[in-house]
Amino acid sequence: MTRYVRYSTDRTAPPTLTDAAGALYGILQGDTIRPVVSFFDSKPAGAAVPVSEVRLLPAACPSKIVCVGRNYVEHAKEMGNEVPTEPLIFLKPPSSLVADGDGVVYPSLTANLHYEAELGLIIGRRARKIDAANWRDYVWGYTCVNDVTARDLQRKDGQWTRGKGFDTFCPVGRWAVPAGEVEFESMRVEAYLDEKCVQSAPVTDMIFKPGAVLAYITQFLTLEPGDLIATGTPSGVGPMQAGSKVRVVVSGVGAVENPIVSE
Amino acid sequence: MTRYVRYSTDRTAPPTLTDAAGALYGILQGDTIRPVVSFFDSKPAGAAVPVSEVRLLPAACPSKIVCVGRNYVEHAKEMGNEVPTEPLIFLKPPSSLVADGDGVVYPSLTANLHYEAELGLIIGRRARKIDAANWRDYVWGYTCVNDVTARDLQRKDGQWTRGKGFDTFCPVGRWAVPAGEVEFESMRVEAYLDEKCVQSAPVTDMIFKPGAVLAYITQFLTLEPGDLIATGTPSGVGPMQAGSKVRVVVSGVGAVENPIVSE
Repeated sequence: MTRYVRYSTDRTAPPTLTDAAGALYGILQGDTIRPVVSFFDSKPAGAAVPVSEVRLLPAACPSKIVCVGRNYVEHAKEMGNEVPTEPLIFLKPPSSLVADGDGVVYPSLTANLHYEAELGLIIGRRARKIDAANWRDYVWGYTCVNDVTARDLQRKDGQWTRGKGFDTFCPVGRWAVPAGEVEFESMRVEAYLDEKCVQSAPVTDMIFKPGAVLAYITQFLTLEPGDLIATGTPSGVGPMQAGSKVRVVVSGVGAVENPIVSE
Repeated sequence: MTRYVRYSTDRTAPPTLTDAAGALYGILQGDTIRPVVSFFDSKPAGAAVPVSEVRLLPAACPSKIVCVGRNYVEHAKEMGNEVPTEPLIFLKPPSSLVADGDGVVYPSLTANLHYEAELGLIIGRRARKIDAANWRDYVWGYTCVNDVTARDLQRKDGQWTRGKGFDTFCPVGRWAVPAGEVEFESMRVEAYLDEKCVQSAPVTDMIFKPGAVLAYITQFLTLEPGDLIATGTPSGVGPMQAGSKVRVVVSGVGAVENPIVSE
């Protein structure tokens, strides 16, 4: 499994550092990063660097984070919703990205902060009105996403932008893995809260699989290379408290773990 | 009034061309563009170019397009909604940007495509938890926005992402004007459909003025320089047909006019 990372040689770089602002790409091998041009071009791009000397960034630099709501039957039911007949699409802002290990800030505006473990798809080439059957041509790789949600604000506002859009509400995996190296059907999505397994489901439980999701999204908007699709969360969502640790695991892909910290 | 434009010397450049991908900045003087470093740095950046030789791009390159719904009393009422007690925030994807003169595509998925004339604020410096009273420190300039909406999909989906997020659904002004050169209180927001005035209201009719809007948004997310805030539309929204032309005017700022074209 090839582990692609994004990083900065500035160890104080913010998690939202963009590629345009100087984020770098590499392949993680043990404790070393072998620099490459990008996720999409594995040509060497300099001398190896110890991972201890860099700031690892979220393994995605999306111009858009496009998310699917209610994409697992049991989760739709636990939220008291009908099982949808079309994908329910919403956006998280890129300002919400954080890396593995970064704190997820518990905002003082909420009293009900939830984890949502999800498989993330990283788009590899521009996609507009694609056929569901061709989805593998457009997905470069997989990563882990925690679609952190202030459940009370999500419900109160109607639009989910604020409830899902706070800074630090989008932890993304330490690395991303090329799609060709993992069998989609083999993956499970799991969440662990303080080491207790609280979500666990095969991705085959998705109501709308990646092909249907990408066909739906690209009917209305153009996806760009690097864009991130969060494919929805299985049942078992629940509250987190400051002081806890939450880990999203996608088997065969990796993990992202974050402490919940007070504002 | 200083008219800042974004442009490309490639006349076939897409309207979504980013700064990272080579978009340039300049000040429009008659038929000539005097290149500058950026909106935020008016130092000369090369020899003047005739506007006829370039592709004018939307006068904003936002990492986020943050929009306010129901921000004028009469518009909230015409949509059958309560007047909100807090700003209602949603996002449009950057893939929806188009420039003055570009076609707005009438999607075959909708049967009710609406214009929404809005004042756009362009953020000048990173903003997080700002005080409403200090909003002018964070707004670099003003432009015009048409928050094009597939009203039937907006209502059907619940989440507004698709109804407001199609490619070409975010026309942005031909130019942007530094905020210090226009008195906020003097502006009117207007829409013209085939030269008939269909929306017209002073921006002072906004329920939440720019200070309140920015204070609310930056309570939960960080705004970056270049981000675009669409401040909501007054009453008078209505349907457009392919073959029509729609123009949004913000007095003292400028305009954006687009033909509606069939898919």
